[in-house]
Amino acid sequence: MSETRDRGDTLVALLSGPDQAGIVARVSGWIFQRGGNIIHADQHRDQEEGIFFQRVEWLPKNDARAEAAAFSEFASSIGMNVRLALSSHRPKFAVMVSKFDHCFHDLALRWKAGEFQGDIACVVSNHDTLRDAAEHYGLPFHHVPVTSGRKDAAEKLQLQIFTDHRVEFIVMARYMQVLSGEFLRALRRPVINIHHSFLPAFAGGRPYHQAHARGVKLIGATAHYATEVLDDGPIIQQDVARVTHRHGVRDLIRKGRDLEKLVLSQAVAWHAENRVLIYGRKTVVFD
Amino acid sequence: MSETRDRGDTLVALLSGPDQAGIVARVSGWIFQRGGNIIHADQHRDQEEGIFFQRVEWLPKNDARAEAAAFSEFASSIGMNVRLALSSHRPKFAVMVSKFDHCFHDLALRWKAGEFQGDIACVVSNHDTLRDAAEHYGLPFHHVPVTSGRKDAAEKLQLQIFTDHRVEFIVMARYMQVLSGEFLRALRRPVINIHHSFLPAFAGGRPYHQAHARGVKLIGATAHYATEVLDDGPIIQQDVARVTHRHGVRDLIRKGRDLEKLVLSQAVAWHAENRVLIYGRKTVVFD
Amino acid sequence: MSETRDRGDTLVALLSGPDQAGIVARVSGWIFQRGGNIIHADQHRDQEEGIFFQRVEWLPKNDARAEAAAFSEFASSIGMNVRLALSSHRPKFAVMVSKFDHCFHDLALRWKAGEFQGDIACVVSNHDTLRDAAEHYGLPFHHVPVTSGRKDAAEKLQLQIFTDHRVEFIVMARYMQVLSGEFLRALRRPVINIHHSFLPAFAGGRPYHQAHARGVKLIGATAHYATEVLDDGPIIQQDVARVTHRHGVRDLIRKGRDLEKLVLSQAVAWHAENRVLIYGRKTVVFD
Amino acid sequence: MSETRDRGDTLVALLSGPDQAGIVARVSGWIFQRGGNIIHADQHRDQEEGIFFQRVEWLPKNDARAEAAAFSEFASSIGMNVRLALSSHRPKFAVMVSKFDHCFHDLALRWKAGEFQGDIACVVSNHDTLRDAAEHYGLPFHHVPVTSGRKDAAEKLQLQIFTDHRVEFIVMARYMQVLSGEFLRALRRPVINIHHSFLPAFAGGRPYHQAHARGVKLIGATAHYATEVLDDGPIIQQDVARVTHRHGVRDLIRKGRDLEKLVLSQAVAWHAENRVLIYGRKTVVFD
Repeated sequence: MSETRDRGDTLVALLSGPDQAGIVARVSGWIFQRGGNIIHADQHRDQEEGIFFQRVEWLPKNDARAEAAAFSEFASSIGMNVRLALSSHRPKFAVMVSKFDHCFHDLALRWKAGEFQGDIACVVSNHDTLRDAAEHYGLPFHHVPVTSGRKDAAEKLQLQIFTDHRVEFIVMARYMQVLSGEFLRALRRPVINIHHSFLPAFAGGRPYHQAHARGVKLIGATAHYATEVLDDGPIIQQDVARVTHRHGVRDLIRKGRDLEKLVLSQAVAWHAENRVLIYGRKTVVFD
Repeated sequence: MSETRDRGDTLVALLSGPDQAGIVARVSGWIFQRGGNIIHADQHRDQEEGIFFQRVEWLPKNDARAEAAAFSEFASSIGMNVRLALSSHRPKFAVMVSKFDHCFHDLALRWKAGEFQGDIACVVSNHDTLRDAAEHYGLPFHHVPVTSGRKDAAEKLQLQIFTDHRVEFIVMARYMQVLSGEFLRALRRPVINIHHSFLPAFAGGRPYHQAHARGVKLIGATAHYATEVLDDGPIIQQDVARVTHRHGVRDLIRKGRDLEKLVLSQAVAWHAENRVLIYGRKTVVFD
Repeated sequence: MSETRDRGDTLVALLSGPDQAGIVARVSGWIFQRGGNIIHADQHRDQEEGIFFQRVEWLPKNDARAEAAAFSEFASSIGMNVRLALSSHRPKFAVMVSKFDHCFHDLALRWKAGEFQGDIACVVSNHDTLRDAAEHYGLPFHHVPVTSGRKDAAEKLQLQIFTDHRVEFIVMARYMQVLSGEFLRALRRPVINIHHSFLPAFAGGRPYHQAHARGVKLIGATAHYATEVLDDGPIIQQDVARVTHRHGVRDLIRKGRDLEKLVLSQAVAWHAENRVLIYGRKTVVFD
Repeated sequence: MSETRDRGDTLVALLSGPDQAGIVARVSGWIFQRGGNIIHADQHRDQEEGIFFQRVEWLPKNDARAEAAAFSEFASSIGMNVRLALSSHRPKFAVMVSKFDHCFHDLALRWKAGEFQGDIACVVSNHDTLRDAAEHYGLPFHHVPVTSGRKDAAEKLQLQIFTDHRVEFIVMARYMQVLSGEFLRALRRPVINIHHSFLPAFAGGRPYHQAHARGVKLIGATAHYATEVLDDGPIIQQDVARVTHRHGVRDLIRKGRDLEKLVLSQAVAWHAENRVLIYGRKTVVFD
């Protein structure tokens, strides 16, 4: 949301930890005393759980890297977890795809249009279908087949690719494979996923067919961080579209695609701008 | 949606039945040959199930009541179910309430503002709380306590009240009691209910607290026809509102109330105007 | 949005003024050094105009009234305008109505439901139509006819009523008279108004008829602070609803009423909670 | 919206003309008597202007082309204007672009994904910027510079290109040139345009900057048929997105791009499926 990206190397800190008196004053005081100028600051308290969250962006007087290190120490000294980023730093991310290509094209075009404060480093797919499209965008494409009983090997290869490309997070753009818990633990990087959502929810296959059979009047999509439990991770963004009896299953699927594009790309943009803090099963999004 | 309510006694027919060639031509031909003038007509085919649905509103040349009877016979002769209403007829309905009063006031004020093509005949409650409010609106109020082990007796009394007031359908305006299957079968009138909806869904009590704990970004409400299975009946209308981490449980509940008012009143308006056809577990809404 | 209203006497300050280095640190430092505990804080910079805005809510260690006075002095000393309120303080407001009653009932019912952090002190109308309704809600009703050539006298009387009731702001709930510039200047209190909005806009009378003739697909409503120029004041909230060719003028008007209720009541709630800062022709809403 | 595209050659007729008794019966009767089977039918009456509109889709018993000709004669005989299309017919359309490419990519990808019942025949631009992108999609690209004082010649060339490619309609995908009245008259084909919309409207340049300065809470986009008067043609579709004081001009523009993509592509889809009827300054959209 900031108009300030081009005005020098600012620092963004995402803080979280036990709520305590004076925390806002201490953080802003620390920055001020060292000549920093706060550009944006937003904070939140979860009063039931006694947790404090803050996103603060400032223009340091001193060298930004050195200041980041110093702030990190300071945050530890007051018992806060912190994630720090320089505004000049553009995190790299991988896009995982299968055959559905709507989210893939949407992400690639937004990236080329400069909508993300980060860069797609590579595309990984269990099919070779989107190789040409990826390469036309100038993106390295890795075909990693996932065959029955060989998922382990595939995941090892994927991990290697992510490490080689130095990606900081992964986006599942309608990647139609479940990631194993071991893989997620080995990754130690956030994974953003997208899935359809309905009121009521439908278990089992062919959810759009079920939704149509049930006559729902709204269909939705949810972007969340992937966890071992399918579609149960912390929610980043959600949206819905209206449908009527005049819409067939094909129409629902088409409207669902538009929702998936909008919701996933918004989640990626927020994540890349360090606007999302996870805690427990939920998120704070400083939009 | 019609602007035509005040221009004479039109007939509204809601037809449904097995799809067949020429059905539209036969219905409109029947009306035309008897000098009727179609004001509105809307139809729908469920192509998977082979069912045809039509809502047709026309100005008959002959006496409307006689024409209704003749049309009813004609519909049977071509194998169609039909529900017929004269535009001058305003169905009576009962409103069931407990202590939450937002939907109750909303319905009563919309009724007084002339938004419904029907009339509230009475208010039935398991508490005496809203007696004054109901009577101020000029509405008969019946207090029918529902005590443990005496639900049967209460339901018998409610049934008697509905019959005495000649209500044609019932609206549960946040009535906090489950209706028994026997009661619903004995009623033989549609019952419209409202409940909150979430993505994902939450089982068990205190759903707004659960939704807050899960960090949902949207909350919703669904109006549906009541069936024996709780909150599982055919959906009439749904809507959602956006929430963020800045909203506490109180805010979610407040936003939920606004959704419940809008969604329930829309469902009641459509039902009263004979715009809703139920089939299986879904509806066709000719809006 | 806060869940904290009942936990003691907090202070809310709305600050605005020329942006300057260290402003967040100085404000939070001042509060911290005097033993206060910040509950919520939100700030905004208009970088084009170099203005800083902050809403900060804290639990003071000392007597809240005394602390408010001290903070006011402090704010002046750093060149900031400030508006201060104790959380225990419930501002009184007047509701101005004519004959349309949908916004009036909506405000009265939300007030009774405890949705506002403030109280309706009186109802003022140029017609006597809503006297009974107002008195049923327990609200003093003042009939101030506005006759041609006697607007001056009416405005003097209205001013007197507002002063007598100690109202801090005024809500025009579809009050169908334009307030004169002199009146607004003499009032020295904010006035919140609601009007319909269309894409494109329509000048002249009967806007819903014009919108219908133009075939718009969306209708809207805007709540704003009243200024001398009609419907041109700083915008607080806006919303829209979808319409189709199937909707007649009556339907547009009905949907417009729902929008007006939702948009106006949201604006009133935010204003009463000291969440709205006006500057120039726009607002910052700390929701 | 139909699921029926692949089940043989259906006919779609869009009828409009003076309202008259029995019109629905006559149309459906004509189809039925010739062995046709109506798949979808939707009609509308503008009761103020006394105009009847119908979209009817049927599976003819006889050869579809011959049946289309016969129906056309029949429609004339009852005083109706008619536009007829075979479901197997995919209209060709041209896309006009300048340098902004978001709507262009969106249209091209939806076309490749099979979302339109029609085909992009060529891309025409006053700049050479998007040549590579167009050709990658397999689309002929024509660079027609529009230089001061030479607009006439450019428009002649464009007209020739459209005729050569046999396009049936034109889509201005953020084409930043005004089409002259002469050109539009010579075209004799519908032109769909997209523009931003605000509440209130803003005249003059840099509308997003104006909207930001005015502090609007919603921004919108409108797709309409182009007429000589800029942005004044019959509206096909509109949508809005919510913004706050936290959004800068860049954010408004980015959100505006998403709206433009969704609204324009929906308008193109409806037009290609023969769902839009223009009359006077408005449309009927049979969705």
